[in-house]
Amino acid sequence: MAEKRILILGGLGFIGKNLYETLSRQGHSVTLVADVVDESDSFLTADVKKNLVRGSILDGKFMEGLVEGFDVIYSLAGRSGASDSIRDPYSDLDRNLKGHLNILEACRKKNTSAILVFPSSRLVYGKPMHNPVSEQHPLNPESIYAIHKLTVEHYYLLYQRLYNIKSIILRISNPYGPYQKFGSNNYGILNWFIHKALTGEEIEIYGEGNQKRDFLHIDDLVAVLTSCITSSSMFGKIYNIGYGQGISVRDTVNLIVENVPGAKVRFKPWPEMDRKIETGDYISDISLIKRDTGWQPIISFEDGIKATIRFYEKSNA
Amino acid sequence: MAEKRILILGGLGFIGKNLYETLSRQGHSVTLVADVVDESDSFLTADVKKNLVRGSILDGKFMEGLVEGFDVIYSLAGRSGASDSIRDPYSDLDRNLKGHLNILEACRKKNTSAILVFPSSRLVYGKPMHNPVSEQHPLNPESIYAIHKLTVEHYYLLYQRLYNIKSIILRISNPYGPYQKFGSNNYGILNWFIHKALTGEEIEIYGEGNQKRDFLHIDDLVAVLTSCITSSSMFGKIYNIGYGQGISVRDTVNLIVENVPGAKVRFKPWPEMDRKIETGDYISDISLIKRDTGWQPIISFEDGIKATIRFYEKSNA
Repeated sequence: MAEKRILILGGLGFIGKNLYETLSRQGHSVTLVADVVDESDSFLTADVKKNLVRGSILDGKFMEGLVEGFDVIYSLAGRSGASDSIRDPYSDLDRNLKGHLNILEACRKKNTSAILVFPSSRLVYGKPMHNPVSEQHPLNPESIYAIHKLTVEHYYLLYQRLYNIKSIILRISNPYGPYQKFGSNNYGILNWFIHKALTGEEIEIYGEGNQKRDFLHIDDLVAVLTSCITSSSMFGKIYNIGYGQGISVRDTVNLIVENVPGAKVRFKPWPEMDRKIETGDYISDISLIKRDTGWQPIISFEDGIKATIRFYEKSNA
Repeated sequence: MAEKRILILGGLGFIGKNLYETLSRQGHSVTLVADVVDESDSFLTADVKKNLVRGSILDGKFMEGLVEGFDVIYSLAGRSGASDSIRDPYSDLDRNLKGHLNILEACRKKNTSAILVFPSSRLVYGKPMHNPVSEQHPLNPESIYAIHKLTVEHYYLLYQRLYNIKSIILRISNPYGPYQKFGSNNYGILNWFIHKALTGEEIEIYGEGNQKRDFLHIDDLVAVLTSCITSSSMFGKIYNIGYGQGISVRDTVNLIVENVPGAKVRFKPWPEMDRKIETGDYISDISLIKRDTGWQPIISFEDGIKATIRFYEKSNA
């Protein structure tokens, strides 16, 4: 594959870091953008710092000056968290909606030849009416976060239609793996559970933990993201991205407990807001992305969990 | 019907003025809100001025102080215009999206018992795949304006789900009639045509004028809007509102020409942006609203056009 000039917005986030490592290894020229940089972060090697630009997608002028010359732009910046978005809808509007309008307007003015990749979410479907969920499933977003993901999907499709800016939209299920934040369950319950297990805190399961999730290892997600560079059949399309199988939250925790000696678990009633926006079981139908690109996930949940536990054991040591 | 306390946001707009007249006549206590007031507007009688509050839905604090005590709130504020929204997406975002978040947040804090009525648009469907278009038709909004209408629909549904704020969403086709602005074709091509005819300017038809529209007389629309006060079966639902029949733009113009002596017509190539976002024929399937409320449009297109021409002849005289 020829070397590409690649921009990762939100480059120091969970997906951004994993994607950076793979793209750099493949020989691409990768620029990372982040608005907040934690100087103590061990990810920040001399090489990474050389490729890092500080700035925010909220700054339209900054974005205009930035986007020129890139072949691919990953729009990973933004903030996760369905519950948080309900507590503070304005902040979600700025970060997760206006920020993307800035990216698109910057590209319209300065770079209409880039490929844009937007990570949407399974949450645009709301509570599934059936599983697995294909891209044709009705859209019933049940949080401000999910509503804005859907809005931004439409932004990207519109800019492709009006200005021929190539866009790819990925409705991602529940990714997990190295480099995920631990601050809250906004950034993936699985990593949150692993962190609790490793630090000796109680893992809290809401309700009975019966709800199934479609957990996807980040390496499998990164494989899709890198294929966006070369798969012109993906332009202007929306794809479900997941492992394609469901596992209950309780079984997930059991697997963590088996692999982390001394892990403690507590069952807890659903917090009011989380219960209201809980979607029930979710399993992706990933036939479309398989057919169009040949991609398929290869990391089993058991292998993925073990590898993730080992990564965090080492990085916490 | 018992007297209700009613708030019309965007009360000096096309729909707001017509709705105000009917609701006042029915004996309700109606408050109008407008951010811009043209003092020379003959609509501003002493009575109207008494019921008028100046302020903007963009001002969250103002909205919080305003909404308490009302039984019904019509969220008619905002700005029309698909082409304009593409030229200035940020402004559309503020007015047509953030403004509605302000209304909903104000109600969440100060008035969760009001009925909220949101006028969405047929444009959320984009280019129809078939006609007539029912509420189940796929949603492919093709302008920032239409994308934001869809986003706000989701906001209203979410606030009903989370906070039991009763919401009714109306996907309105092409309303026409008295009190519509003439400044541009943003506010309904039909009134724009009538204005051109009456002032002796050329009516401009883009292309051949074959595209069909579902024109709805404002009195029929007002009848639906007032039924929202009493029809609890409408809460939390989305309805298509139109006449349910299509008439081509060219036939529309012919009818105006027959009724306005000396009217001139010119055919003109589509402007680039208008052509890109033109939806083709659109005819509403209105069976759902008919079934739930018994409402049906009663003003034929010919009668409606003649009455509208007479209104503007008088008001321009």
